[in-house]
Amino acid sequence: MPPHDSGTGHRRAVRVRPCRPSLSSRFASLYTTQYWKRFHGFVYTHVQRTGRPGAASEPAIAAPDDHTGSSASWNSGPQGRKPSGHPPATPTLTAQRHRPVACIDARDGRTEQKGPPLVQYGHFDDDAREYVIETPATPLPWINYLGNEHFFSLISNTGGGYSFYRDAKLRRITRYRYNSVPEDSGSRNYYISLMEPVTDNTADDSSAPAEAPASAGTLRPALTWSPTFLPSKTPLDAYECRHGMGYTVFRAAKAGIETELTAFVPLHTTAEINHLAVKNTTGREVVVDVTGSVEWCLWNAVDDSSNFQRNLSTGEVEVEQTETSTMLYHKTEFKERRDHYAFYSVNEPTVGFDTCRADFLGKFNGWDTPDVIASGESKNSIAYGWYPIAANHVRLTLQPGEERMLVFLLGYVEFPEAAEHPEVKWQDGDAKAGIINKQPAHELFDRFNTSEKVFAAFRELRAYWDELLGGFQVTTGDERLDRMVNIWNQYQCMVTFNLSRSASYYESGMGRGMGFRDSNQDLLGFVHMIPGRARERILDIAATQLPDGSAWHQYQPLTKKGNADIGGGFNDDPLWLVASVFAYLNETGDASVLRESVQFDNAAGSEQPLIEHLRRSVHYTMTHRGPHGLPLIGRADWNDCLNLNCFSTTPGESFQTVENNDTGVAESVFIAGMFVLYGEQYCQILERYGATDLNMDDSSVADEVRDVRAAVAEVTEAAMTAGWDGDWFVRAYDALGEKVGSHVNDEGQIYIEPQGMCVMAGLGVQDGRAATALASVKERLTCRWGTAILAPAYTTYHVELGEISTYPVGYKENGGIFCHNNPWISIAETKVGDDDEAFEVYRRTCPAYLEPYSDIHLTEPYVYCQMVAGPESPTPGQGKNSWLTGTAAWTFVDVSQFLLGIQPTFDGLRLDPHMPSRFGQLHVERLWRGTRYLIDIERTGERSLVVDGQPVDGNVIPQAPAGTEEVNVRLTI
Amino acid sequence: MPPHDSGTGHRRAVRVRPCRPSLSSRFASLYTTQYWKRFHGFVYTHVQRTGRPGAASEPAIAAPDDHTGSSASWNSGPQGRKPSGHPPATPTLTAQRHRPVACIDARDGRTEQKGPPLVQYGHFDDDAREYVIETPATPLPWINYLGNEHFFSLISNTGGGYSFYRDAKLRRITRYRYNSVPEDSGSRNYYISLMEPVTDNTADDSSAPAEAPASAGTLRPALTWSPTFLPSKTPLDAYECRHGMGYTVFRAAKAGIETELTAFVPLHTTAEINHLAVKNTTGREVVVDVTGSVEWCLWNAVDDSSNFQRNLSTGEVEVEQTETSTMLYHKTEFKERRDHYAFYSVNEPTVGFDTCRADFLGKFNGWDTPDVIASGESKNSIAYGWYPIAANHVRLTLQPGEERMLVFLLGYVEFPEAAEHPEVKWQDGDAKAGIINKQPAHELFDRFNTSEKVFAAFRELRAYWDELLGGFQVTTGDERLDRMVNIWNQYQCMVTFNLSRSASYYESGMGRGMGFRDSNQDLLGFVHMIPGRARERILDIAATQLPDGSAWHQYQPLTKKGNADIGGGFNDDPLWLVASVFAYLNETGDASVLRESVQFDNAAGSEQPLIEHLRRSVHYTMTHRGPHGLPLIGRADWNDCLNLNCFSTTPGESFQTVENNDTGVAESVFIAGMFVLYGEQYCQILERYGATDLNMDDSSVADEVRDVRAAVAEVTEAAMTAGWDGDWFVRAYDALGEKVGSHVNDEGQIYIEPQGMCVMAGLGVQDGRAATALASVKERLTCRWGTAILAPAYTTYHVELGEISTYPVGYKENGGIFCHNNPWISIAETKVGDDDEAFEVYRRTCPAYLEPYSDIHLTEPYVYCQMVAGPESPTPGQGKNSWLTGTAAWTFVDVSQFLLGIQPTFDGLRLDPHMPSRFGQLHVERLWRGTRYLIDIERTGERSLVVDGQPVDGNVIPQAPAGTEEVNVRLTI
Repeated sequence: MPPHDSGTGHRRAVRVRPCRPSLSSRFASLYTTQYWKRFHGFVYTHVQRTGRPGAASEPAIAAPDDHTGSSASWNSGPQGRKPSGHPPATPTLTAQRHRPVACIDARDGRTEQKGPPLVQYGHFDDDAREYVIETPATPLPWINYLGNEHFFSLISNTGGGYSFYRDAKLRRITRYRYNSVPEDSGSRNYYISLMEPVTDNTADDSSAPAEAPASAGTLRPALTWSPTFLPSKTPLDAYECRHGMGYTVFRAAKAGIETELTAFVPLHTTAEINHLAVKNTTGREVVVDVTGSVEWCLWNAVDDSSNFQRNLSTGEVEVEQTETSTMLYHKTEFKERRDHYAFYSVNEPTVGFDTCRADFLGKFNGWDTPDVIASGESKNSIAYGWYPIAANHVRLTLQPGEERMLVFLLGYVEFPEAAEHPEVKWQDGDAKAGIINKQPAHELFDRFNTSEKVFAAFRELRAYWDELLGGFQVTTGDERLDRMVNIWNQYQCMVTFNLSRSASYYESGMGRGMGFRDSNQDLLGFVHMIPGRARERILDIAATQLPDGSAWHQYQPLTKKGNADIGGGFNDDPLWLVASVFAYLNETGDASVLRESVQFDNAAGSEQPLIEHLRRSVHYTMTHRGPHGLPLIGRADWNDCLNLNCFSTTPGESFQTVENNDTGVAESVFIAGMFVLYGEQYCQILERYGATDLNMDDSSVADEVRDVRAAVAEVTEAAMTAGWDGDWFVRAYDALGEKVGSHVNDEGQIYIEPQGMCVMAGLGVQDGRAATALASVKERLTCRWGTAILAPAYTTYHVELGEISTYPVGYKENGGIFCHNNPWISIAETKVGDDDEAFEVYRRTCPAYLEPYSDIHLTEPYVYCQMVAGPESPTPGQGKNSWLTGTAAWTFVDVSQFLLGIQPTFDGLRLDPHMPSRFGQLHVERLWRGTRYLIDIERTGERSLVVDGQPVDGNVIPQAPAGTEEVNVRLTI
Repeated sequence: MPPHDSGTGHRRAVRVRPCRPSLSSRFASLYTTQYWKRFHGFVYTHVQRTGRPGAASEPAIAAPDDHTGSSASWNSGPQGRKPSGHPPATPTLTAQRHRPVACIDARDGRTEQKGPPLVQYGHFDDDAREYVIETPATPLPWINYLGNEHFFSLISNTGGGYSFYRDAKLRRITRYRYNSVPEDSGSRNYYISLMEPVTDNTADDSSAPAEAPASAGTLRPALTWSPTFLPSKTPLDAYECRHGMGYTVFRAAKAGIETELTAFVPLHTTAEINHLAVKNTTGREVVVDVTGSVEWCLWNAVDDSSNFQRNLSTGEVEVEQTETSTMLYHKTEFKERRDHYAFYSVNEPTVGFDTCRADFLGKFNGWDTPDVIASGESKNSIAYGWYPIAANHVRLTLQPGEERMLVFLLGYVEFPEAAEHPEVKWQDGDAKAGIINKQPAHELFDRFNTSEKVFAAFRELRAYWDELLGGFQVTTGDERLDRMVNIWNQYQCMVTFNLSRSASYYESGMGRGMGFRDSNQDLLGFVHMIPGRARERILDIAATQLPDGSAWHQYQPLTKKGNADIGGGFNDDPLWLVASVFAYLNETGDASVLRESVQFDNAAGSEQPLIEHLRRSVHYTMTHRGPHGLPLIGRADWNDCLNLNCFSTTPGESFQTVENNDTGVAESVFIAGMFVLYGEQYCQILERYGATDLNMDDSSVADEVRDVRAAVAEVTEAAMTAGWDGDWFVRAYDALGEKVGSHVNDEGQIYIEPQGMCVMAGLGVQDGRAATALASVKERLTCRWGTAILAPAYTTYHVELGEISTYPVGYKENGGIFCHNNPWISIAETKVGDDDEAFEVYRRTCPAYLEPYSDIHLTEPYVYCQMVAGPESPTPGQGKNSWLTGTAAWTFVDVSQFLLGIQPTFDGLRLDPHMPSRFGQLHVERLWRGTRYLIDIERTGERSLVVDGQPVDGNVIPQAPAGTEEVNVRLTI
C-alpha cells in the first residue's frame, strides 16, 4: 500500500517540534507579543525535549543591535557587518558585485581567515525557521517561494516576483519583467502615503509633516514609501524581510508608521494573501493611504512578452466596488476559450481603484512614482486593451497607537466544468451579457476576509511545514550545519519538487518541462518528506520512458507526455530511474510500486510493471556500449553540454536538439560508473523483492542478476582500464575515439563527474585508485569555493565537444563549480575514508557557510545555486542560478546518509556516520516508515549500538514493528 | 532586361527636387545656417521648376511661435495647440490616452467641427520632409526607422528603439524591453552633465551653477539631462525631434547648453551614427560631460529574453581605449560559433567607460539615474556575464560660444569567410589568445571618424531619398494630401519593404517571417520606387509557392524558405501573386520576369517559368470551389481571423496552426471577388505577352484565356446569387453551409472585405448593386474614424468562426477599423462614380488629417496604423499597430492610381482622376520607365489630353520613346 503524505489526505500521528518565531527587539514597539501571537500562536513556547542537547554553540553572528526608534543607517543598504555584529562601517546602496576577486588560496579550502572582507546582509533565525534580510540592497534579489500545490509565487526581499497556476508558461497570473531596468520592480506594488491637508504648500520628503492632518477635507500625500522598499525606493527608518517556510514577512517603519506585510499561499488555496498591518506610533491622529497593486500577465507568458500586435487589444477587466470591499477582475480572453480569470481584492472599502497601467503610472513614470500615488487620487480607470493592472486604494484614519489590518488577495478562479456547461462561466448563465460568474471569487474572498481567518490559515501552513521538516532533524553542535539540514536544504528539496526547473529568477518559466534525469534525482531529496507524491512522480516519469529503455529527456507537467521538441538520446537518463526507485524502496519498503502497470511513451496498450521499466533501463546501457566496452554517451550524459556526437557550427543552435550523429563510438566513463552503481541497485531490488513481491521464480531472478552483474563486471573492467588515465578517471571517448578528460589533452584534462560517480560506485576503492583520483580532484579542481567541473577550462570552441566549450572560461560547464556534482565527491571521500575532506567538500559550497562572503557569492545564503564561478574565471566564488538545482537533493543525500550516515535500507536504518572527529556528539531524529527514531551518536572510540536499551550487532537498526511511535537509539563510534 | 534601382548599382539620370531643410527660429541661435549647411548642403536652395504651381495653400497649422531663448512651457509635455498655433493652455506630462471617448457623429464622416478638442504634438515640415515633434510626451512613442539594406534601427522621439542586422530575431544588436516600465527607456542613453568643482556643497537642479567651473580639479555633475529627454527625464528648456527620411534629429537646450543629436544609418553601412553637437551659449567657460551608452542584446532576441540560466554567464566584452577614441566591443558567443561582433565607439578621448550594467546603473536605479552619471565618475567596469553594456564618457571644456561635435558609432562586424578560414576572426589568427580581429571595426570607425565624413554620408542619404520619392510628386492644393502622397505614404511603403511585419513597437521582431500575402500586397506600394528589388522579391515569393498552386503562408527572410511551422491553406494567398506581377508589368513592362525560372517550394528540379506559377495560382482557385461555386476559403482568406474550418477550444492555441478541418464546404465571397479581379489580370498578361514574350502560340493563349474567363463568369454568377445578400455581399459560407455576414445573422451581419473586393472587380457596377453595397457600407460600418471591418461586432466566442470572435467588441478583426481594407472601399467608390465619398474614405483614416486628434488617435500622425478602434469599441478612433501594415501599399495604390488617377498600364500611362470637384487643379510628376511625366490636370468641364503639345485621344499617354527625359502633359476634365 502506498504511503500517505502529510498535507495530502489523512495525516500520520507525528510529533513535531513547532518553531518559535523570533522577536527582534528592533520591532518590539510594533510587533508586540500579542500581535505576533495572532499569527503564530507559538510565542514563547519553548519546547524542551528530553534526551537531546540544546543549542550547542553561540551563533557566529550576533543578534542585531537594538536600534529601536531611529536607525539612520537602515536607510542605505548593505551592512558590512563583521561577525561580531557591529553596525556597518560604510552604508551604501552601491552593489558590490561584478568586481573580479582574486581566488585567494584557491587550492586550500581551509584558509578562510585570509579571505576577502566579510559582508553579510542578514542573519538566520533558526528558531523561527526564517532567514532575516536586513537591507533591501542585497547583492541580487534574494527570493522565496510561496505555494504548495497548484498556485505558486516567487517573492523577493523587495516584493518582486510573480504568481502562476500550475504552469509558469501557460497560466501566468502576474507579469514579471525579467531583465528589467530597474531590476525586480513592479510586482507587488504597495504604497503607504502619509496624507496631509492641501492647505500648506510643499512637503519636505525627509520628515513627517509637522501638524496632524485632519481626516476630513482634501488630502494629498506628504510622504510615500513601500512596505517592501520597492517599488517606491523611499529610504525606510526600519526594514526587515523574513523568508520563512512558504511565507515572507516584511517589516518596515517610516515617520512613525509601522507596517508588517505577510505574504503566503494558504494550503489548498488558489490565492496569495498579502496581509498588511499598519500601526500609528506618532502620538497623533494620522491619515494613511494604502494602495496595493499588481500587473496582470495575459496568461501565456511567452505570448505576453512577444505578441503585442494582438495582445494590446485584448485586455479586459471588471470592477466590483462595494461598501466593504473592492474586487478587481482580470478577464482577458475569458470571453473566448479560457475558463479562468483572476482577481485582486481588499477587504476594506476603497476610495478608488485603477485597472489601466498608463492611467495609474502616468507618462514616463516607473512603478516607483506613479501619478496616482503622487497625487493621492485614483482615477477609477477601466482598461480596454493595453496593459491591465489592479490597484486598490484604501484610506485609513489612525488614532495614536491604533493598528489596522488589511487583507489583499490575489486569487485565481477556474471553471473546468465549462467544457460541458459553458454557461457556468457567466453571471446568470448569460454569455452575451458578458458579466463573469463571480461566485467562486466571492467564496474565495470570504474564506480570508478577516485577519482572524488569515491567521488561522497561516498557522495551518506553519504546522504543515513543521510536519514536513520534522522527519529529519539533527543537532550537531555546528549551527550552520544544523540549519541547513533541518530547514533550508529540505525546504529547497521541496521547492525543486514543486517547481522542477521551471520558474526562478534565472529560469523564466517559459521553457523547460520536467527533466527525466532531473526529476529522478530531485526525488532523492524529498522522498522522505512526501513519499506518496514521490511514488506518483516515479510513475509519471516512467511513463515517458521509450520501449527500448531510453527516455524522452523532458516531459510536460500539464500533459505528462514526453517532449518531442527536445527528444531523447541522453544515455544516462534511463539509469536514474533505478536510483529513484531504489531510494523510494529504501524509504518506504513499498514494493507494490514495482508491480504498478506503467505505459511506455504514454501509449495505451504498452503497459508493463514498473520493474520491467527498470529492466529495460539497465539493459539499454548493457546493449549500448562502444569500442572500449564503455557505455555509449549518445547525445550527452549528465553533462548536457558534453555533446560528443553533435557537431554544431550554427550560431544559436541548441545543442539539445541539433542532429545527433551517434555512430557508436563516443563513450562515457561517467555512465560506466552509473551502471556499476545502479546496475547493482537493480540487482538488489530483484534479490529482495523478486520472489516475494514480483512473483518471479528464484531461477529467473538469479539469471537476471547474474547477467547484469556480469555486465557490471565488464564495465568495471573497462572503466579501470580504458577509463583510467593514471591519476584519475578519463571522462569519455569522443566520436573519433579520442580521450576527453585525460592528461593527453591540452585543456579539459580532468573532469569531476567520473571521479565522483565511479568512486561512489566503488571503483578503485580497494586498490587505492579511488583515493588517487580524489587527490587529483583536490589538487586540480578544488578551490575555497568548491570543486570545479573540469580543468583547465577550454579557451576555444571545440566542435567535437559541443556546448561545454562555448562558455567563457570558468563559467558553467566550462570550469565552473557545478554544485550538483560536489556532493558526489563528498560521498566518494567517505568511501575512501577521508571524513575530514568529505565534510570540507560539503562545507565549501554550503550556502550557510558562505553567508559572510555574500559580496562575492551574491546569491541567497540559505539555498544552493546551480553554479559558482570557478577558480579559472574572472569572478571566482560568484554564484548564479540559485534555487532550482539538483544540488539540493544530492547535498541532502550526502549530508543525511553519508556524513551524518543515517541510511534507510530495504529492511533497516543503517548508521554509518562520517563526520570529522571534532564532532563528538550528534543527535538525530529520523521519521522512517511511521516510527520516529531518536538517535544519539557519541564518539567514544568504541563501536556499540543500543536500540531501546537492547544491544544490537552491526550498525543497522531493524525496522520497528508497525505502530511503534518512537525508538530510542544510542550509537557509539 | 530588368530595371535597375536607385541606390543599388548604377543610377538613372533622374532629375529630383531636393528638399529644403527647415530652420526653426527657435533654434536659430544654435542651428545656424552654417551648421545646418554642413549637414545638408541645401540651405536656402529653393528649387523652382517651370510649369509647376507653387505651394497651393497656407499650412493649416501655423509655424511654431518664436520662443527663442527661454520657453518654460517646453518643459512639460503635450501642447494643446489649436490650429492657430497658440501655446498650450495646460501644459502637462500626463498621458491623455485610454479615456473612452464617445464616437461623436459616428455615422457622419463630415462633422469634424463637432469633434473632441484638438490636440497635436508637433507639425509637418514638408520642405524638409520631416515630422517635427515638439514634446517628448507624445501619447505613445512616435518612432522612425533608420537603415536601408541590412542594418536597421527603430528610433522613437525620446531615443528609444533598437538595432539589428538583417534579422530582428537572430541578429539583434541592442536590447529593447517591450512592455517595459518605465516605457521606452534604456535604448540610446545619452547624458549631458554640466560639471562643477566639488568645492561647494549641493547643486540646485533647477538652475545652472552660479560660477563657471574650472576645467581642472575634481568635478562633479551639477545638472544632468538627456539630449533625447529620455532616459534622464530632466525637463528641457527646448526640445524638438525631427523624424526625416531614414534619419532622426533631436535638438535640445538646457542651462545654456544646446545640443543636436542626429541619428542615421549611412548607405551601404552596417552601423548607426549618432552625431552629437554640443554648444556653449552661457557666456562663460563650462565643462560638459557627455556619456553615450547602449545595452547589448545577446544576439538572439528570443533567447535573450528567456534563457537567463545560460545567458547570464555568457556576456563578454573587449575595450580599446586610446588617446583619440574608445571602442567598446561586444563579443558574446564570438568564441564559439558566431562570426560577428558589435561595437560602440566615440571619436574623442574618453575619461572613462563602462561595460557592466550593474556597475553603471548601481542598485535599484533605472536608466534615468545611473550611479556613474550621478557621480560623474566612470568605473571602467568589465562585464563578465550578466548584462554587458557600452558606455563612453567624454569630457568637453567649452569656451563661450564654442561648439564641439562627437561621433558615436554603433557598428556591426561580420566575418562570413570564417566558415572557411576561422583564423580571420582573431587578432594574429590566434583563437587561443581570444582577442578579436578588430581590423574591420577600425575600418568602419575610420569611415566616420570626423564630422565632415558624417555630413557627407548624411548628404548621400538625403540624395538617396530625394531620388526614391521623386518618382511620384503631386501638388493638389491640399497640403495634407500632398505630404502624405509625396513623402510619408511612400516612405511607409519603403519601410514595409524593408521590415515586412517583423519589427515595430507592436511587432517584437521575434516571430513572423515574410508573409506571402503581405509581401505581394506591399509590393504594390514600392514597385514604382525600386522596381529591381521588387522583381527580386517577386521571385523570392514565387519560389515558396507549392506545386499545386497553393502557398506557404510565410517564409523566412534569411533562408527564403517556406515556414512549415505556420503552414499553408490560406486560399487567398496564391492570387496575390498575380496582383504583384501585374503591377510589376504595368510599372516596368519587363516581361522577362514571366520567363524567369522559379522553383516550387524551393525544391531543386521543380523550376518553371514564373508564368506557370501564375497559372497554378489561378487554377488553384478554379479547382477549389464549394457547393455554391464560390472559392473555398481553406484555413482563412485575407482575414486571418475568419477561421471557418478550425474549431479551436483550447486557450492560447494559435488559429494559424490549429488543425484545418476543411471539408470542402466553407466558401469565401471575398476570394470570389479576388478571382474575378486577378483572373482577369492573368488573362490580360497572357493576351499581351503570351505570344510576344512567352513563345506561346495564339491558340494556347486563347484556350487558356477562354477557360479562365469562363470560370470568372461562373464565379461572378455565384457571387451575384449565392454571394448577394440583398443589400450587400455575403462574406462567406461556414463549414455547415451557413451564411456569414448576412442579415440573417444576429451579429457580424455585414463585412467590409467582399464589398470592397467585389466592387473593385466590377461586380454589380452595371446593375447598381455595387452602389447598394457601398451605401450599406457607409450606413452600417462607417464612422468619422473610418470604416469598420464588420458590424455588429461579436459579443461571444463562435467556435465556427474562429479568432475573429475572440477579440473584444470593436477591436481588431472584431469590428475594428482595419485600415488595410478601407482603400478598397475608396477604390470601389471610384468604380461607382462617387468621387466625393471615395476621397472621404481616404481622408478618414489618413494620418495627416488625424493630426489634430492625436489625443484620441494616439499613434504617429505621419504613418498609417493597422487598426483603429471601431465605432462599437469603448475607445473609437484609438490607433494601434502603426507602421507595418499593408495599409501603406493599398492607400498609395488608391490615392495615386484611383483618386489622382495616374495608372501605369502595359503600354501607357492612363489618366483617370476621381478627385472631388473642389480640387480644380492638380500637378503630378511621375517617373515611369525612365521618363518623367509632368502632368497638369485642370477641371474645365471639357475632356482633353495634350501630350508635349499634341492632342491625344482617350486618356492614355503612350509610353515615350526610350531615352526621353521629360514629357509634358495637360489633361482637362
